[in-house]
Amino acid sequence: MNVIFRQAERSDLSAIVRMLADDFLGSQREQFADPLPAAYITAFDEISADNNNELIVAELDGKVVGTLQLTVTPSISFRGGKRATVESVRVDAAYRGRGIGRKMMIWTIERAKQRGCITMQLTTNSDRTDAHQFYADLGFSASHIGMKLKLT
Amino acid sequence: MNVIFRQAERSDLSAIVRMLADDFLGSQREQFADPLPAAYITAFDEISADNNNELIVAELDGKVVGTLQLTVTPSISFRGGKRATVESVRVDAAYRGRGIGRKMMIWTIERAKQRGCITMQLTTNSDRTDAHQFYADLGFSASHIGMKLKLT
Repeated sequence: MNVIFRQAERSDLSAIVRMLADDFLGSQREQFADPLPAAYITAFDEISADNNNELIVAELDGKVVGTLQLTVTPSISFRGGKRATVESVRVDAAYRGRGIGRKMMIWTIERAKQRGCITMQLTTNSDRTDAHQFYADLGFSASHIGMKLKLT
Repeated sequence: MNVIFRQAERSDLSAIVRMLADDFLGSQREQFADPLPAAYITAFDEISADNNNELIVAELDGKVVGTLQLTVTPSISFRGGKRATVESVRVDAAYRGRGIGRKMMIWTIERAKQRGCITMQLTTNSDRTDAHQFYADLGFSASHIGMKLKLT
């Protein structure tokens, strides 16, 4: 299995939104359609224009089969140590169980280290019980409570 | 009580680091000294240069008595909705119990809405039991698990 990881291009966006929508939580909040709603394209362009955000894809035999977003945050705390945040981690349902998600996370951890981050953080919905073990196996500690407030 | 909220300036940095260090977790990881370690100044300049990060202070009668960091993250998920993240929330120990932290968060929630964010998120260490109630009172839901991985 030859999977590569790279920065997403605009032509990957449809595959990314499809994976985000194909999910028990994502199906309630995403809108996968052709053409894609313009808000997705605007968001892609905003991420591309921001040096501290990277939209990553996993590509297997020319097909996009995984995605996540890496955010690098300069921070005063931890003696001025940069934080890496990972969001919106997905692997195509048809390609799960092959270790693609794990490889994508390990690649992203190395990427965050290259960018000078001293810690990586993420939140995972309490209902995603399989995800907790996935991240624990990568060395993540469930030390925090993740709290959310809707602003709309 | 006339408290104002504003973007931090470099001259506020010492007061900010003092508050971060004056904390049962922060005391283990910060270094409040005169002069400040250079890494704090570098981090301040990185935050200032990043349009998607804001270091906020609460000022009471000319004195800095509170701080937090707001990060705006462009995102594909939630139909391209921007996320607001709040980190490193502190109120000077001598000024707690007066509602300054609550006012600072309400100000920041409005700021995040102005910046187009559709959700605000934060993680709080499981040992900060008083903080959980503070955020719950502001409407936050403890829907997620916050996981961390040290990269150093």
